[in-house]
Amino acid sequence: MSVSKLSLTRSIAMLSTISSSLLILNKPLTRALRFPIPNLPLATNPRGLSSLSTAAISNNAGGGRTGALSPAPVTEDLQKIDVNPPKGTRDFPPEDMRLRSWLFFNFREVSRLFGFEEVDFPVLESEALFVRKAGEEIRDQLYCFEDRGNRRVALRPELTPSLARLVIQKGKSLSLPLKWFAVGQCWRYERMTRGRRREHYQWNMDIIGVPEVTAEAELISAIVTFFKRLGITASDVGFKVSSRKVLQEVLRRYSIPEALFGKVCIIIDKIEKLPLAEIKKELESVGVLEEAIEQLLQVLSIKSLTELEEILGDSGEAVADLKQLFSLVDKFGYSEWIQFDASIVRGLAYYTGIVFEGFDRGGKLRAICGGGRYDRLLSTFGGDDIPACGFGFGDAVIIELLKEKGLLPELGLQVENIVCALDPGLQGAAATVATILREKGQSVDLVLESKPLKWVFKRASRINANRLILVGDSEWQKGMVGVKILSTGEQQEIKLDELD
Amino acid sequence: MSVSKLSLTRSIAMLSTISSSLLILNKPLTRALRFPIPNLPLATNPRGLSSLSTAAISNNAGGGRTGALSPAPVTEDLQKIDVNPPKGTRDFPPEDMRLRSWLFFNFREVSRLFGFEEVDFPVLESEALFVRKAGEEIRDQLYCFEDRGNRRVALRPELTPSLARLVIQKGKSLSLPLKWFAVGQCWRYERMTRGRRREHYQWNMDIIGVPEVTAEAELISAIVTFFKRLGITASDVGFKVSSRKVLQEVLRRYSIPEALFGKVCIIIDKIEKLPLAEIKKELESVGVLEEAIEQLLQVLSIKSLTELEEILGDSGEAVADLKQLFSLVDKFGYSEWIQFDASIVRGLAYYTGIVFEGFDRGGKLRAICGGGRYDRLLSTFGGDDIPACGFGFGDAVIIELLKEKGLLPELGLQVENIVCALDPGLQGAAATVATILREKGQSVDLVLESKPLKWVFKRASRINANRLILVGDSEWQKGMVGVKILSTGEQQEIKLDELD
Repeated sequence: MSVSKLSLTRSIAMLSTISSSLLILNKPLTRALRFPIPNLPLATNPRGLSSLSTAAISNNAGGGRTGALSPAPVTEDLQKIDVNPPKGTRDFPPEDMRLRSWLFFNFREVSRLFGFEEVDFPVLESEALFVRKAGEEIRDQLYCFEDRGNRRVALRPELTPSLARLVIQKGKSLSLPLKWFAVGQCWRYERMTRGRRREHYQWNMDIIGVPEVTAEAELISAIVTFFKRLGITASDVGFKVSSRKVLQEVLRRYSIPEALFGKVCIIIDKIEKLPLAEIKKELESVGVLEEAIEQLLQVLSIKSLTELEEILGDSGEAVADLKQLFSLVDKFGYSEWIQFDASIVRGLAYYTGIVFEGFDRGGKLRAICGGGRYDRLLSTFGGDDIPACGFGFGDAVIIELLKEKGLLPELGLQVENIVCALDPGLQGAAATVATILREKGQSVDLVLESKPLKWVFKRASRINANRLILVGDSEWQKGMVGVKILSTGEQQEIKLDELD
Repeated sequence: MSVSKLSLTRSIAMLSTISSSLLILNKPLTRALRFPIPNLPLATNPRGLSSLSTAAISNNAGGGRTGALSPAPVTEDLQKIDVNPPKGTRDFPPEDMRLRSWLFFNFREVSRLFGFEEVDFPVLESEALFVRKAGEEIRDQLYCFEDRGNRRVALRPELTPSLARLVIQKGKSLSLPLKWFAVGQCWRYERMTRGRRREHYQWNMDIIGVPEVTAEAELISAIVTFFKRLGITASDVGFKVSSRKVLQEVLRRYSIPEALFGKVCIIIDKIEKLPLAEIKKELESVGVLEEAIEQLLQVLSIKSLTELEEILGDSGEAVADLKQLFSLVDKFGYSEWIQFDASIVRGLAYYTGIVFEGFDRGGKLRAICGGGRYDRLLSTFGGDDIPACGFGFGDAVIIELLKEKGLLPELGLQVENIVCALDPGLQGAAATVATILREKGQSVDLVLESKPLKWVFKRASRINANRLILVGDSEWQKGMVGVKILSTGEQQEIKLDELD
């Protein structure tokens, strides 16, 4: 039973037995109460919980001497600001922050279960780290600027280049394989047309130093574990998997230079967003011949590994990698979550092998997450290559999915205790009680002003407190406090040293 | 006993009882082992844990077919990047991230104990939010720029203005008092002379809607609780406390306009950094008369509340507020942590009442934290004022202090289990074992490549694993795995469904 369902009259009446002075509360309270609360602004503030408007209208809503605000010392600064966060960014008021913390906790918990170590990098990186020449969407959306020292910097659009930078920097001191994860904010400057934000948080898991596709199998396994924890099933979402080597083998057949590979991938990644004629035109413009384009598009439509093998033959790495991955996935036990789909290439130029994408089977949402193997990224930064793969998992689409499936958790504020002095002179005593409970690991909302009990009950209800602890004069003199279990209404006097 | 202290020969020998095939390990292992691990690159990779150099020199260090890296698809992007994070920023490799997570956990845990709710705001805010005219250091160091939409934006230098913005935005929907905390990254663009960084994380706790100094007492109590959790005592650190009203009363006596107040505070905040003559000159330049300056400086040197009362009289708010706070602190039970010091004004223009600063009694470090009352901030943004106070606590000085006191925690990586297939064909079986353990909440590092046992033991030691779980053919056929407790060397075969 929640506090709000308790009869307030009854609750207050029960409490009245534990203290000694007299105070008449206004309606609907009918019994005389005996609490020593002088100077309470009961009659002038009958609204219970004061709201912003109350405080704004009446500066001494709290009733204390210091309630009178001092004159404005900074009037010269007066300005009207926009109270909204900058376009494309978010505030996190408590209710949104609880959801974010819950989501991040699950990111971290799954990462921990898989033995990954958390890392982070600067939000502000050198622009050079993100400027690749393949025409990626991510580059067009770079949130870049010049700092006061005339350095070109950018708010990171993704975490992988920073990870690569750190791996190169750490060099020989690292023991491979690395299993690293990060939860970090990423930025992209895009027109706000599709309701997309300019910042989001991204969970990344990366395995550095494992050339085998067991690494990819392990990464997808981690995401599956994450989905399961949240109540998402294989009928809600799936993974489409392919390999960049499929494209590479087709390109090689037509003697298309390796240097074009990144650009071709980026064009093909737009296959679901642009008309086919547009895709063909773009491929032509970078120098892919018509015959090769037809073959490419034919291969990209393949949804079966057997069919792929028929076309590419069984000697190439593309088919071998994919077959090995699907065989592993079967043994890992999450076959029903994944399917081959040759059209998956992902939008980052640096992928070299397996690529995958988590998708909503309902078909309503954008990709939930995506990743792949990037064995050659380090050398593009001047380092020695190390085989690597990883994924990025944003905080936006998953929340949409959870909403849609009715899987969003109810995350109310919950403070275990609310402690209230029944007399301003007992504020220190109430603080002592709060300290005792906090030292035992219990959370305590200490009432910092003299407030009517009605107000205290409302607040207790708002913060979902389990217990209301009242510090009254007569009990305090006996080394005791009044404790009320708010769910049952049960109340008793408890000795201070027996509080826990 | 750690794994590394075990005799490797003995460990391997003990393990040899649980499997069935034959494999000869090279020196210093002297006994024949019976594990089914074909294709192990034992002879070619005797270095144990492969390092970056190994991987870089030998691309097929892992030994698998996919160990051969595919040709570089993105050679066009080749560039040499700076592997260091941008000037003044930090990477967080795992060891640093563990420390950061530990610190943030304590920030959050103390906030929870005090019943505070977590919030956050955008790292990138409108520049207007931070541009105050009082000449604060923080404004000179604003990390600001123009975005692609020609908007003046800034990386936040502090959290309080964003909090004020959100409070105004939420308006009447909020129930006062708010007790909010945040742990967020803040930026300042300063010359890198004193080893100060350009970004740091800051823990903020704010109480919005309480005019009484009980709020300040509660905030300082939270910081004391934090210090105590970390092993820091009142002989290590203290709080210097004063009130902006002290200055205000002196200024009023000399009929100095209220509008100058912010500027005067900012100048006085530099009193320990600049020569006194410089301070006087700056005060004169904003229009404070010499007589007033002398009186100001005299008052600022006061370290006793009694003396302050003698000079200012007992009728003003300054003395009354401070006396009430010290009386409360006495009852809250942390008197030995705090002292009156009139020279404390803090460097932000918006404080209106009590100001406080946590300091290192050793005198070596800059302020550890600081805060105060800012009852008039909201109206400077065009909102209705609400009494408020809060503090900021950075992540840099506290770490220096902990180092100095020998209180930095030892935070090693710890993964509970390492699971290893003794045959590449058993990789799926090993994954099954990992999944079973993870579903029981246990962390598992799954060995993803075929590696010599020597390598596996070294890795187990590096990740501080409690158990090594070996999945061998003959055991697996019986539905069992080999489990070795690494601290004792104890080992046994355990049925899969009895693993926990």
